[in-house]
Amino acid sequence: MRKILLTIQYNGKNFCGWQVQPNKRTVQEVLEKRISNLLGEEKISLFASGRTDSGVHAYCQTAHFETDSDFDIKKLANAINSVLDTDISVLSAKEVSKNFHARFSIKQKTYLYRVYCSDVLEPLNNGRVAKVNSKVINNFELIKKASKFFIGTHNFYGFCASRSSTTDFVRTIFDIKIKKTKKCIDFYITGSGFLYNMVRIIVGTLISVGEGKILPEEIPEIIESQDRKKAGKTMPAYALYLYNVKY
Amino acid sequence: MRKILLTIQYNGKNFCGWQVQPNKRTVQEVLEKRISNLLGEEKISLFASGRTDSGVHAYCQTAHFETDSDFDIKKLANAINSVLDTDISVLSAKEVSKNFHARFSIKQKTYLYRVYCSDVLEPLNNGRVAKVNSKVINNFELIKKASKFFIGTHNFYGFCASRSSTTDFVRTIFDIKIKKTKKCIDFYITGSGFLYNMVRIIVGTLISVGEGKILPEEIPEIIESQDRKKAGKTMPAYALYLYNVKY
Repeated sequence: MRKILLTIQYNGKNFCGWQVQPNKRTVQEVLEKRISNLLGEEKISLFASGRTDSGVHAYCQTAHFETDSDFDIKKLANAINSVLDTDISVLSAKEVSKNFHARFSIKQKTYLYRVYCSDVLEPLNNGRVAKVNSKVINNFELIKKASKFFIGTHNFYGFCASRSSTTDFVRTIFDIKIKKTKKCIDFYITGSGFLYNMVRIIVGTLISVGEGKILPEEIPEIIESQDRKKAGKTMPAYALYLYNVKY
Repeated sequence: MRKILLTIQYNGKNFCGWQVQPNKRTVQEVLEKRISNLLGEEKISLFASGRTDSGVHAYCQTAHFETDSDFDIKKLANAINSVLDTDISVLSAKEVSKNFHARFSIKQKTYLYRVYCSDVLEPLNNGRVAKVNSKVINNFELIKKASKFFIGTHNFYGFCASRSSTTDFVRTIFDIKIKKTKKCIDFYITGSGFLYNMVRIIVGTLISVGEGKILPEEIPEIIESQDRKKAGKTMPAYALYLYNVKY
């Protein structure tokens, strides 16, 4: 039995997220079907670094599968890509050890969230970057200041969508890098792992800081309150990118 | 009679370029129809800074029209946007003098061309950035060196598609800025004006330099030869953006 780790990029627009669901086009479903056909195996099972929601993109998702097939690993990525649609691609494939697990071996994950600050919808950003009030860019330094309060180990109960089935809400954020280019602000959030909608709610809260609705100094008490209503809104899925997974 | 200048952004994917054509969806046709309806005029006529080809995008196209309507110029952009699709948007509108012309008053125009260097199709770049050989990025300094030879006033006959109806092939390139970010190379080409497909052929030639097929020092004689076959290939339209128009 061989264990293979794939690095996968996808445009989430036309996928109902990662996980297999009945009658929906999902990344897992498309990949499992095409790879099984390619290898002539009954059914391979993919284990991802984590699910991504409907509409969320990935620069760099990772997933492993086990197989008995005897193929040249160097040719696998190209072979899979030859049977994939243009909104999904295998960037690389490598053989990993028996005790590796795409989810449980993770050291850290980084998500990118992209906003642009404008009063007008900009077609070239539309559907890929979230539009926020044009004045938000003026408070860039306040947003940076506020972001520092998220770093560390906290109970993020207040930054988690209610549909979550988790019972442990403690997560560690290692770093938040925020870059400004013209009207755009890119948030790179790196942590041990993330709760359901956690990145989108953290960014929503930082946008509230940019709008002058929340002061940076209020962030610690908002986190401690564990009250979803005190945090900012959940930002849309289409501007969220799984950016990197480190083992 | 008032003269109005619009700044327009569009995603070119679903447009057959700027210029009105029978039974095709073009930027000019959509804008003229919607603005005429909005102002209750029989038919306004838009004059652009220049045509863009089918599939080409614009961060910042400009176009003027004349009108007798008595509207508040500050509210015009929002009013037009309220009747437009999401792949086109008026960024701003202002009143200009009678002798202004969106095309003939131009001082300079800048196009952006975007490539990414990869052996694998990357879905998040697909349709917006052109894929070139992964090794091209290693020759970034050679590409920069080669680009300098294009700057100045030259006869660009060899860098013009054969369908062109122009008779004067002399154009001035003021500047070429080339930026590298990870796998991506962005070419910003600024000039007095451009021939049909000229930007796409210049970038194609610089990519040939990146592939080791043309030496930087060969560029002057390629330009002087006025031979289309000596220049590089025409890069695809979908990675070309009209970036800026200065008056």
